Amino acid sequence: MILTLLTDFGLSDSYVGVMKGTIAGINPALHVIDLTHQIPPQDIAMARFQLMSAYPYFPSGTVHVAVVDPGVGSSRRSIAIQCESGFLVGADNGLFSGVLSQTSAIAAVELTNSNYWRTSTPSNTFHGRDIFAPVGAHLASGVAIEELGDAIAIDTLVQLPIPEVVSTPMGVQGVVQAIDHFGNLITTIEGQHVRDRNWSVECNLKRYPGQQTYADAAPGEMIGLVGSHGWVEIAVNRGHAQAQLGLVVGSPVRVRFA
Amino acid sequence: MILTLLTDFGLSDSYVGVMKGTIAGINPALHVIDLTHQIPPQDIAMARFQLMSAYPYFPSGTVHVAVVDPGVGSSRRSIAIQCESGFLVGADNGLFSGVLSQTSAIAAVELTNSNYWRTSTPSNTFHGRDIFAPVGAHLASGVAIEELGDAIAIDTLVQLPIPEVVSTPMGVQGVVQAIDHFGNLITTIEGQHVRDRNWSVECNLKRYPGQQTYADAAPGEMIGLVGSHGWVEIAVNRGHAQAQLGLVVGSPVRVRFA
Amino acid sequence: MILTLLTDFGLSDSYVGVMKGTIAGINPALHVIDLTHQIPPQDIAMARFQLMSAYPYFPSGTVHVAVVDPGVGSSRRSIAIQCESGFLVGADNGLFSGVLSQTSAIAAVELTNSNYWRTSTPSNTFHGRDIFAPVGAHLASGVAIEELGDAIAIDTLVQLPIPEVVSTPMGVQGVVQAIDHFGNLITTIEGQHVRDRNWSVECNLKRYPGQQTYADAAPGEMIGLVGSHGWVEIAVNRGHAQAQLGLVVGSPVRVRFA
Repeated sequence: MILTLLTDFGLSDSYVGVMKGTIAGINPALHVIDLTHQIPPQDIAMARFQLMSAYPYFPSGTVHVAVVDPGVGSSRRSIAIQCESGFLVGADNGLFSGVLSQTSAIAAVELTNSNYWRTSTPSNTFHGRDIFAPVGAHLASGVAIEELGDAIAIDTLVQLPIPEVVSTPMGVQGVVQAIDHFGNLITTIEGQHVRDRNWSVECNLKRYPGQQTYADAAPGEMIGLVGSHGWVEIAVNRGHAQAQLGLVVGSPVRVRFA
Repeated sequence: MILTLLTDFGLSDSYVGVMKGTIAGINPALHVIDLTHQIPPQDIAMARFQLMSAYPYFPSGTVHVAVVDPGVGSSRRSIAIQCESGFLVGADNGLFSGVLSQTSAIAAVELTNSNYWRTSTPSNTFHGRDIFAPVGAHLASGVAIEELGDAIAIDTLVQLPIPEVVSTPMGVQGVVQAIDHFGNLITTIEGQHVRDRNWSVECNLKRYPGQQTYADAAPGEMIGLVGSHGWVEIAVNRGHAQAQLGLVVGSPVRVRFA
Repeated sequence: MILTLLTDFGLSDSYVGVMKGTIAGINPALHVIDLTHQIPPQDIAMARFQLMSAYPYFPSGTVHVAVVDPGVGSSRRSIAIQCESGFLVGADNGLFSGVLSQTSAIAAVELTNSNYWRTSTPSNTFHGRDIFAPVGAHLASGVAIEELGDAIAIDTLVQLPIPEVVSTPMGVQGVVQAIDHFGNLITTIEGQHVRDRNWSVECNLKRYPGQQTYADAAPGEMIGLVGSHGWVEIAVNRGHAQAQLGLVVGSPVRVRFA
């Protein structure tokens, strides 16, 4: 079975390797896939976006262990969630609310059964190693979610919603929700708003045409398009839109229909 | 079987993870190895160099999926190539011409058979996920290359040649073709030019002695040597030659025989 | 079996991929786990710390291949060491002395048997590819360590000790030994010194309270705690202690008992 890892640990320390060693000690046959370990430290909103973006592309039964956990060692809950086509393991801090906005949760538990932890006396600072990775490894190895701890009500899970867009006949008002490695500005506006329409995107008092792909623009030209994740984004062909526009997460962006 | 991935996607987003999820959904038994995901955005020449450098060290039958694809969604061809000891999958933009300068192509196809794509309606912006990764996974799982699409003539593949060196009895004139993580300046001059010779390397009007390894120089000393990839390079023992010399890809470098 | 890799190669070149291709060519069933490839170039002390930190979390029999090797191609020895619960492969430059400070070496050999190298004529600059990765792959595949070369005395292995702490009834004086991705300052003072005590940590003429976990402090507050690796560290809740304090590896830090 497949287990994915997403953290804010970076790749310069051996923290991620330690989680993988722990997993291999439980079940060396598991197939571990890194989503990313370069979530900015403590940035739950970015972790939420990246996990939500990756989730639909994994086979049924995949276990996603996500560790962006500024409250580690505090009273925040450690949880596992069973969704329609996979499992989520981590801290109850809103990180999973992106996935849960797109798929249904079937069951959720608080991770209270220390039999599935690495040790019954976990550290106060690295639950990724001591609780989440081992629980994920057991879950991916066939342990039933009910074994992991006490059931909790799904409607008590911490939510981290993104701002709702405002949609009118003239267009849609949203914000930047993420910026990718290429500098593409990914908004909160779903691509379905612009399907089969003529449209443009506005920010910083300027307007850029809606296109199908980067290469529809001349090199250096700014455009709007629907990115591969399904959101409207602002991009520059062979350039870096974020550096050119100076927008940040939360900056307003408007789609305007022709 | 082994499938390698090389992209310019970076490691901060989940794009690479999404490709791996897609591959695992087709054949979870495939052994996926990352070459690098830190090709500078859209830098086909660097991708060409890195893939060429890695190719000889993989077992026969390995499938190399390489996605540095500024023309995604345009009319550029999506291709697969069968070589003597492996397969190449990606866009027809010259990325594979380094490998093809060192080994023979046996067959090439345009990826027109959507049965081997993730979906028959791929996105316009992420063929790595929708076409190249799934095609690579099928190829590594035993699908014959002819099944993937229409045969194309090998001599129609886009070439991205590096400048030819000028060789005289006195020496060899080339250029920097790549700069590695250590700041070593890797030239277009093949190591065989300096085998069993006394030689030095010249750039910026200065001359540095040809040596066997980094530790032949005092710490901080600049030298020439034949790197592990087989090219003449300029290096500083425990230092960063690029930062010291200020050379860039394309800067002239000369080997001079004693 | 499991084989880990730790290097200073970075992730922008295909050097790590080449090592993995070499390993897969010897035994594609090996489970390869990256510890880190972002050790600062030639920083043996940081490699020593990271390997020591990861070693206890891997299953018995794991082979750790570590390549931070400024002396490659010189007369420094290439070695393999059998420890109580795993194997170490790399250059004899002190990199392994952290692991060996925590576990016992059972046997050590110099890697003189070229039958287990990639080629009997290895490069002068990339023993990771030509010697260490293939030897590690053979060792993880069941080759006995004695087959790899001539036995060497364990007390001849190069040592790279960290400065000993000074412990008094009033406190413990140590130094910073590593700085992690989060900016946490990890000292040479073992956590057992502060167990069940009231304590504070001092540096730069300031004193910060000893706590259990990051979330015990207000956001932005500086504290001492025992990190997940077992060392006293200085941290800022949701902040970057190194950037705030300006300490470097080697800077003095004092634990003071109440």
